[in-house]
Amino acid sequence: MIFGFVIPYRDVCQLAKPHNVDWLKRRLAINNIFRFMLAKRHVYLQVCTLITSVKNEKIKLVRALADNQYRKASKKIVCEGLRLVSDALKKGLKPEFILYSEDVFQSTSFQQYFSKQLFSKPIAWKTTQQVISSISDTVTCQGIVAVFEQPSNVIPLRPDWVLICDKIQDPGNLGTLLRSAAAVGVDGVIVSPESTDPYGIKVLRGGMGAQFAIPITVCEDWKLFLQLVRELDVSFFLADSKAEYSHYDLHLVEPLAVIVSSEAHGPSCYVRQLNPVEFKIPMQNSMESLNVAVAGSVFLYEVLRQRRAVIQKN
Amino acid sequence: MIFGFVIPYRDVCQLAKPHNVDWLKRRLAINNIFRFMLAKRHVYLQVCTLITSVKNEKIKLVRALADNQYRKASKKIVCEGLRLVSDALKKGLKPEFILYSEDVFQSTSFQQYFSKQLFSKPIAWKTTQQVISSISDTVTCQGIVAVFEQPSNVIPLRPDWVLICDKIQDPGNLGTLLRSAAAVGVDGVIVSPESTDPYGIKVLRGGMGAQFAIPITVCEDWKLFLQLVRELDVSFFLADSKAEYSHYDLHLVEPLAVIVSSEAHGPSCYVRQLNPVEFKIPMQNSMESLNVAVAGSVFLYEVLRQRRAVIQKN
Repeated sequence: MIFGFVIPYRDVCQLAKPHNVDWLKRRLAINNIFRFMLAKRHVYLQVCTLITSVKNEKIKLVRALADNQYRKASKKIVCEGLRLVSDALKKGLKPEFILYSEDVFQSTSFQQYFSKQLFSKPIAWKTTQQVISSISDTVTCQGIVAVFEQPSNVIPLRPDWVLICDKIQDPGNLGTLLRSAAAVGVDGVIVSPESTDPYGIKVLRGGMGAQFAIPITVCEDWKLFLQLVRELDVSFFLADSKAEYSHYDLHLVEPLAVIVSSEAHGPSCYVRQLNPVEFKIPMQNSMESLNVAVAGSVFLYEVLRQRRAVIQKN
Repeated sequence: MIFGFVIPYRDVCQLAKPHNVDWLKRRLAINNIFRFMLAKRHVYLQVCTLITSVKNEKIKLVRALADNQYRKASKKIVCEGLRLVSDALKKGLKPEFILYSEDVFQSTSFQQYFSKQLFSKPIAWKTTQQVISSISDTVTCQGIVAVFEQPSNVIPLRPDWVLICDKIQDPGNLGTLLRSAAAVGVDGVIVSPESTDPYGIKVLRGGMGAQFAIPITVCEDWKLFLQLVRELDVSFFLADSKAEYSHYDLHLVEPLAVIVSSEAHGPSCYVRQLNPVEFKIPMQNSMESLNVAVAGSVFLYEVLRQRRAVIQKN
């Protein structure tokens, strides 16, 4: 619903002051928002209480951000769902705006993640369920979608351990890998060229907040990728089912980077240039491979086990 | 393409002999198939060289088998793709029929899995690419879909280790869990009620042949489920992020069953009745949980590590 009214120009400066904006919002029982359009010596004040159109600028932006190229260029991310939006806010990500529908308050887990107060702030825009569903990536939309600035944490210069994702193209697998990487507490993740974008909406959903918890560096170019990883001062380990030694046989307490590669294509020629130590995860029953996210996670948890054992010994 | 011709009744018995069928197949350069229809003292021999209709009985059967209830009742499974069909044949599963299109021979990995001979056998039915794509569950159909009898291996009475899937509803997660379970070499997997069917086409794809490698018991009823698992003579372990001890702290060399539960709903009240030892997988960065397939796999590989260590010691 959009309505508007005209006020004299002389009142504009007064109105634009924050406390007056607040007063007007309380007065009109709305939380959104003003657009000023100069018409001679008057100002047209447009008050939008509810986004009802899928052609609204914010709705169009969310839809545009589904495009990989546009998202990368704009350095923005779209988060959907109570848990993910709440995680992003808790980790200090700067929200551009939050879209919600009345349904969000009906969710049984609403109070676990939010106070109602947030939704009366100017960053929160109410929409109809129909409009928010039109930009939702899930079957049953929880009624909350938000746009944030992309996190910009940097991997430390001398990391203890790093995960390198080599051409991981499946969003579910990359999300799961990031989730495990954040859970074991790696110092960062490097995503190679030809991988899916770790800030894609499906990867964010699979990551369950991992993207806000650990630094992730995305390389768009193999030359830059090699340059970056060579600067790390770590030993490289590469999962390869044809390797001689299993991950149980390796000493994994020194600084390391573990490389996991696409199941479909195997390790890329670029990661082979790093002369990694190859290892396999033992397998029975003539199984040829594990799911890539499982293989990476099993390795990372073996690293964690060995490091905890060293700490307990000392 | 279907064509037919009429032959005298007296030749029918002769024609029906296997070596004559083979001769006719060579003669007509076809590999499919005969239907006899009696018309007075003659027989109408119908030769179907190519399935061109999506209304063909076999195509309709494959489509019907996408339905969970129908598939469970019929005890049949649908496998798609070179790798999976080849795996099922290698593990001795009995094929009902194999559907293929000319495209299957173009695949670069064709020779890795098949000899062309198979496709001249009466179980192999050629279809158009359009028809086979209509029953394919993948974006780019490899041109091979087959129907098999469901595997019927039984979990041994005194297993060393078993995986119990408690209400795992995501096909990708169940497939990945089965794949890991087959890879570590568990003695069997028990799938609880309210789980997705391990023989669904997406789970088969995720399992990468696991369903043919290890015994899987599907329980449709919680009472039967409890009865079955109580008979196992194992200790139960349950993944729960709120548990006090981590899986590293547990002694895992005695016979055991590990229970992994749905991320969305947590452990069911029924598995709690088994008084399982609860364990957590350690997590940093305020991550609340791991992907269920990762959690299960990380635990199974810790069991394998401990058991290998015992063997190496002795």
